[in-house]
Parts: sequence; C-alpha cells; structure tokens
Amino acid sequence: MELNLKGQYAKNASYILNKASTVLKNDALTAIAKALIEKQELIINENNKDIENAKAKGMSKTLLDRLSLDNNRIEAMAQGVMQIVSLNDPVGIVFEIWTIPNGLKIGKMRVPLGVIALIYEARPNVTVDATTLCLKSGNSVILRGGKEAINSNKILSNIMRDAIESVGLTKECIQFIEDTSRETALSLMKLNDYVDVLIPRGGAGLIKSTVENATVPIIETGRGNCHIYIDDYADLDMGVNILFNAKTSRPSVCNAAESLLVAKSVANEFLPKAYNKLCEKNVEIRGCEKTKKILKNIKLATDEDYYTEFLDYIISVKVVDGVDEAIKHINKYSTKHSDAIITSNKKNYQKFLREVDSAAVYVNASTRFTDGFEFGFGAEIGISTQKMHARGPMGLNELTTIKYIVVGEGQIR
Amino acid sequence: MELNLKGQYAKNASYILNKASTVLKNDALTAIAKALIEKQELIINENNKDIENAKAKGMSKTLLDRLSLDNNRIEAMAQGVMQIVSLNDPVGIVFEIWTIPNGLKIGKMRVPLGVIALIYEARPNVTVDATTLCLKSGNSVILRGGKEAINSNKILSNIMRDAIESVGLTKECIQFIEDTSRETALSLMKLNDYVDVLIPRGGAGLIKSTVENATVPIIETGRGNCHIYIDDYADLDMGVNILFNAKTSRPSVCNAAESLLVAKSVANEFLPKAYNKLCEKNVEIRGCEKTKKILKNIKLATDEDYYTEFLDYIISVKVVDGVDEAIKHINKYSTKHSDAIITSNKKNYQKFLREVDSAAVYVNASTRFTDGFEFGFGAEIGISTQKMHARGPMGLNELTTIKYIVVGEGQIR
Repeated sequence: MELNLKGQYAKNASYILNKASTVLKNDALTAIAKALIEKQELIINENNKDIENAKAKGMSKTLLDRLSLDNNRIEAMAQGVMQIVSLNDPVGIVFEIWTIPNGLKIGKMRVPLGVIALIYEARPNVTVDATTLCLKSGNSVILRGGKEAINSNKILSNIMRDAIESVGLTKECIQFIEDTSRETALSLMKLNDYVDVLIPRGGAGLIKSTVENATVPIIETGRGNCHIYIDDYADLDMGVNILFNAKTSRPSVCNAAESLLVAKSVANEFLPKAYNKLCEKNVEIRGCEKTKKILKNIKLATDEDYYTEFLDYIISVKVVDGVDEAIKHINKYSTKHSDAIITSNKKNYQKFLREVDSAAVYVNASTRFTDGFEFGFGAEIGISTQKMHARGPMGLNELTTIKYIVVGEGQIR
Repeated sequence: MELNLKGQYAKNASYILNKASTVLKNDALTAIAKALIEKQELIINENNKDIENAKAKGMSKTLLDRLSLDNNRIEAMAQGVMQIVSLNDPVGIVFEIWTIPNGLKIGKMRVPLGVIALIYEARPNVTVDATTLCLKSGNSVILRGGKEAINSNKILSNIMRDAIESVGLTKECIQFIEDTSRETALSLMKLNDYVDVLIPRGGAGLIKSTVENATVPIIETGRGNCHIYIDDYADLDMGVNILFNAKTSRPSVCNAAESLLVAKSVANEFLPKAYNKLCEKNVEIRGCEKTKKILKNIKLATDEDYYTEFLDYIISVKVVDGVDEAIKHINKYSTKHSDAIITSNKKNYQKFLREVDSAAVYVNASTRFTDGFEFGFGAEIGISTQKMHARGPMGLNELTTIKYIVVGEGQIR
C-alpha cells in the first residue's frame, strides 16, 4: 500500500522531470553537491551507526570498507555529481527526421524512461551516483538499498530530496524505501503500474532473484566471467602484461579476468611466463589437462570452474586449438560481459570481434576498461549483461528511450 | 526437455546466422518466397484442416477470416518476404567510433539479439512475417503459434526450414513448437539459457500472462487505447475527419482511436459534428456529464470505459479544460501507444509532443499511421508499448542490439 503510494508519487514526479529544463536539473544537481559537502558530519554520524551495527554482526573487513564514508569519500561523491552537471542532457533531442510519401514528418525524440527502480547492496555511494544520473536524464527513482547501509542511505536521500526542493523541483522524484525486507523488494519487482525499469545492483543472488521474480522490465547487470585469449599470433609479453592487469589489478570487480585461453601453438612458451607473473600475486591456477602437462603443479579445472566468476585471485586456464575454439568456448561459458583477444593477426581479431557474443570485445587491451568512466560516458549506473535495451556500461543515454513524433496537416489512412 | 533441445539448436544456429553474409541471408529469403509460391496448394490443404477444425468448434467469422489462407494471401506473404530482401542489413555495421585518452579505439557494432521467441495467436502469416524479419536481422526464432493454426504454421515453418537449408544455411534457426499446451508456453517464457527476447503477439490475456510469468526479457506489444484530442485551436472539420478515420477505418486494430477528448471552448460546436459523422457507422458514444449535456442521447461513460480498448464501434468521450488536462488524462488512461492532438497552435502541440508519454505522438494526423510499413521500416514484427529497448513499430533495427568493440595496442588499467 505504502509502496503503491511511493510508486504513484514517483510516476507523477517523472512527468514534471520530463519537462524540466536542463538548467533547472543542473541547479538541482549543484544543490545536491553543495549539500553533501555542507552536511558531511551529519552523513558520517549516520554512517557510523551502520558501521557499528555491521561490526556487531561481524561484517568482513572488505565489506566494512565498502560501507564506510569519510570526508574524502563524500567529497568524491560531490565531485561525481558535479561531473554529471557537465554532461550533455540527452532529453528532448529530436533526431532521424524523415518524411513519408503522404507528407507526414516523423522524428525520434529522446525521452526519459520514466520511473527507474534500484535494488542495491552495501555501498551507500550508489544512492547518490544512481539518483543523480537518473535526475539528469529526467527519471524518477525508487531506491531500495540494503539494510546494512540503511542509515547512510536514508540521510543521503533526505539531503538530496531537500536540495532538489530548494531549487523548485519536486522532491518526490526520489522515493526511498525504508523497509528492507525481502517482501518489499519482491513487491517492488512487481510494481508494473509505476516502474518502467528495474536495475538490480549487487551479487549473483540478487540478480538471480530479480530475474526470477520481477514482472517489471529489468536490466541485468554486473556478472562478469571475462576471458583473455592468447592467440597464435600474440605478442606474448603484451599478453602476460594484459593478463596480469586484467586478473590482479582489482579481482573483486566484474571486468576482472576469470579465465585464460591459450592457443596450443604458443602454450609451451606462454604458460610458464604467465605462471611466473601470476605467482607474484599468488594467483591460484586451475587448468585443463594440457595446461597441467606444461605447468605441472596446478589444480585441474572442473567444468564448473570455467563457468565461475571467482572475484578472487583464482583463474581457470584452457589450451585451445585456435581462435575458433576460443570463440566457441567463450560463447558457451562467459557471462557476455567482456572478453579479449591478444593477437597481431587482423583476420583473427576481426573474427573474434564479430563472433564473440559479449557486451565488450577487446583486441590487445585489458578487459578492465569496461566501465562508464573509462569509456568516456562521464558516469555509469551499472554494466548491462543482457542484450535488450542496453549493453555494457550504461550512462545517461541508456537511461532514456525514444518516442516517435509525427506532424501532419490532416492526413488520414 | 525437448524445449531445451530446441533452445540449444536455436542458440547454436544464431552464432552461424550472426556471421552469415547479407547475400546468403537474402538467398535464403528468396528461396522462402519461391517455395511459398510453389507450395501454395500444400499450404492451402493444411490450412483447410485448421479451418474445418475451427468451424467445428464454432469459431467466429472474423477469426475464421484471419485464419484463412488463399492464393492471394500466400502471394502477398511471398511479396512481403521479397520486400525484406530489399531492406538494408543492419548487422555488422560499426558506428560512433571514438578514441579515449590512452589511445583505445571504441566503436559500437550492430549485432543480432540472438534467439527471439514468439508466442502468437490465430494468424498464420505471422509465422512467415516474423521469421523472415528475424532471419534478415541474423536472429534464430522459436515459434509457438496458437492451436487453431497449428497445421498451417507447421507446414509454413517446414517450407521455410527446407528453403533455408537449400541455400546452405542451417535450418535450425527456425524452431517450431508443435505442443500448443499452456505448460509449454510457460516453459518457453522461462527458457533463460537460450532465449534473448520473447515477443508475445496476441490479445490482452496473452500479454498479461507473459508479463506475469516470463523470466526471459520480453517486449510487450500491441495494446492501444489511443486518443484524439481536439484542442481549442483545432480545425474542426479536420478534427472530424481524423476522428472518423482513426475510429472507424479499422476498429479492430491497436492503432484505432478509442477515446475522444475535446477542449470545452469548442465542445458545443465540435461534438454535434463528430456525432453526426460517427453515426454513419453507428458508433456508440460513451461520454462524460458535459458531453451528455451537449449530445443528450448518449450513454454516460464509466471510469472503466476510459481505460478500455474497445476494438469495436464504441468510443469514450470527455470534455476537458484544455491541453494540460488532455495530457494528464492521456498519461493516466492510455496504454502509451498512439495519441493525437488536432490544433493549429504551435505552443500547444509542442507541449503535447513533449509531455504525452506514448510511443507515437501525433499532430493533425490519424493515429492509424503507427505501423512499420507506414513509417517506412519495410515491415514490422509488432508494436512495442513498453519503454525498454524498442518503442512503437519494431523493424529490423529493433531486432538487433549493439556490442562495444575496443581495439588497443597493449593498454592496461
């Protein structure tokens, strides 16, 4: 009942946001950035409550770090908001205009999606990042964060609501759900009257539950079982370098490499080099029979390993015949996130680019670049791993849709 | 189990289709068109079985007509296929290429969605129309038609499979589900391992069931509660003409008008004119209190009437204060399909174009033009009424997605 009301508020506010000028939306964003800085102590106080609760429940150090806010992190948040101010507003742009034989003029107008619901986990900065991206692209948001960050999320959304109201826009474009029960999340997944798109951001469990239960349109995000394929024509030192970066620079993120494929013609030379480098970070290697013949002291990989997103210092390895087997393997085991070929052979990399069915396909570069900031979008609300609507990093454009506008002089059919 | 196998076949075939050349796909389409003509008698024989079964079950004349195939209709189908041959192939095109500061080149490549599942009702021509659009755009299809057309659908898909094989492409890109039980449809809605997008085409019941049960991404299609709004500044004769066309030229289709809104300043003059014209086709009018004061002999509209897609010679009518109330009413009651304003006032129509939240928004033209052929797309697989991925008529482009291709020289992050 309360959720329905929040849905209604968000929907009504979305009509107001849709017609808001870029200047007004930027004023609101600037007010948010300012308020975040001014209210740092308040935010940190509320965040401390979450931290204490989390400690009492024995949360791991890594998760505690993700949950924590300090002055630096709040300033970074505010800077992120100001960066969104500087991005071009996609809303209202009319493009691809054409005239049909009877004289009707048809064009596409870029418009907000409407109401975007977010279900997300521990990190409170998502509250600000996601909301401000939605605001700039003219969308209302319904926020349902995790219980671990409830106090932080609540104060952040209150600060943003007040800031938005202070410039004369409606604060109802942010709806915050305080109830962190699973039942409420499930109801939000079925709020078809008001939610245009639901984006889940979190672990595999959350994504799975959303896919299984949502009746509203969703965008699946984030699971990344990324591959590095070392081709027959690879510069092997470049290969080692890219592999090491993709696997170890930040193993916990979705664009980190989880699996290595090596063409058999270079396996004898490449695998020992890669092994030595990966040992610097104590990466555990789980390889196929052929890999084990070359590297000896490693674990044998199971079929399950090839499907696994380890998010840790572990990598699966397989020796393949060449580019065709690599493509086949990737299309079977990957999560369609990011996959790379290392090669100097144009025919092979063109084949790889065309045939690997993933959101981002790389030649001679680390998969770690799949990221809205790195791609130059200025920000991202997540990385889509589905094919519908948006694929890969989602920036402002991906938070919009189009409508056809048709102008005539009395035409009938 | 069998469905899983069909899903696997379709998925494997989609990788082959993804890399098939335009020439080869066009050869397959041409072979299909030829085979349809050559095997007319066979098709008509099978169709007669469906017709006889339908008659025995007392199917209505309208539905019987939709189910029936004759030489003319089969020729029209074949011509439709040849029209798809003439359309540009969107697959493989790389666009929006840019370079990020570290020298990485990023581009977007248009690629097929992969496997498209279709659940559809009585009309057998959908079997051919949808499959050939999917084929041209590089997608496999899984077809699950209604039981009324099972013999027609089966022969049509067999003919297409053979034609595709005859040019050296894999016939497995068409998977036909013979089992027309509800259970199988439900299983198809949950075939997440293989289905990239599911498009339901049919009545409100089918759409509702798909939204509620599908775990695969879906595109909602076809429900159209379309409005004609007569503004204070309307050319009233043009308004009558457009209203009459939109309501009566084909009341059973989704782009037909279902509701009339009239600005109060012109209601006294417009409504009697509209009434007289609509009486020519015995259109039943259900109006608000104000409408009833002017037209007397009409039924009073219920709130439910304003939500209803009549698909019949019935129209709901409401007198509104002006363009703002019209927009508010439409955004509340419409199915976000197609809505029109009749006006010569630029400010009002610009407001209407920007603020009405529908797939197609018209100025001074009939809503009946919302159609892939009319829009110049050459064909359509349906009309999306959701905002995600595709909106309005869906042609070849809407059956594709993009992937990012990233080319470097050893860049790491």
